[in-house]
Amino acid sequence: MIMMGVDPGTRYAGYGVLKTEKQKTFLVESGCLDVHKEKTLVKKIGRIYEFITEKVKEHNATHLAIETPFLYRNASTFLKLGYVRGILYLIADQNELEISEFSPSEVKQGVTGYGKATKEQVAKVVLRLFHIKKPQRDDTTDAIAIALCGLWRVKSGPSGRN
Amino acid sequence: MIMMGVDPGTRYAGYGVLKTEKQKTFLVESGCLDVHKEKTLVKKIGRIYEFITEKVKEHNATHLAIETPFLYRNASTFLKLGYVRGILYLIADQNELEISEFSPSEVKQGVTGYGKATKEQVAKVVLRLFHIKKPQRDDTTDAIAIALCGLWRVKSGPSGRN
Repeated sequence: MIMMGVDPGTRYAGYGVLKTEKQKTFLVESGCLDVHKEKTLVKKIGRIYEFITEKVKEHNATHLAIETPFLYRNASTFLKLGYVRGILYLIADQNELEISEFSPSEVKQGVTGYGKATKEQVAKVVLRLFHIKKPQRDDTTDAIAIALCGLWRVKSGPSGRN
Repeated sequence: MIMMGVDPGTRYAGYGVLKTEKQKTFLVESGCLDVHKEKTLVKKIGRIYEFITEKVKEHNATHLAIETPFLYRNASTFLKLGYVRGILYLIADQNELEISEFSPSEVKQGVTGYGKATKEQVAKVVLRLFHIKKPQRDDTTDAIAIALCGLWRVKSGPSGRN
């Protein structure tokens, strides 16, 4: 199983790729795509699609985990985040990836045991688990945390969520 | 200018292609893609992407007009509609289409002169303009109306919206 976690936004898109081998989980690659300089939403979406598709193919990903947004107070932001998520659905279809979604609080709960944990607390757990240095942006550690939740859900079976 | 209007939903996606030649506007093709039997949202999105891309290439579309959803009372529906719209943004980027968006009331106002017109009233105007028979679904006439608004906006210049 090769699990790709993505934390997609309209400025930055964090990603993390996890691999399980002999009961052990490895972090294959992680990072953050910067699209905040792309001038239009159309260009941003095109860039995220290209980049994530490339990474999926490079690592032969089999699964995709994403964070499902809750309702933002700002409807326009909520809608734009939906646009970005839509292309992840398309990538899942085109590459036959199994997709799983998590709310922000499910990710926090899963990784830190506390649904209202801060981004820093999530990062701390992720850094400790994989012995990596703090990346420049939280989007990266968030994406790794999302991938971890994806792994756990698959391992706990089709009906299990904890 | 070849303008494609799309009314994308998670059950049906209406589309209409308009062409302007010598000051006259022709309806090249219109119809409605039925995705309500696709079992997952991932499959629906993949299918809509394939189909609309095919039509864009077939007709050498240069412009894309879509309806921007307003906030639904149901956040989950609103989010899913965002997913579908996201792939239209991707199609615009991949095929270098100029994109324009309209709220449902802008489309109604543009076509019937009344922002709270019914779907039937919109259909009536569209059918009369292009001398076509009533299609099976309103999604088709809605999409043609959206394409018409797209045409008018382009013709009225970059800053004009009336």
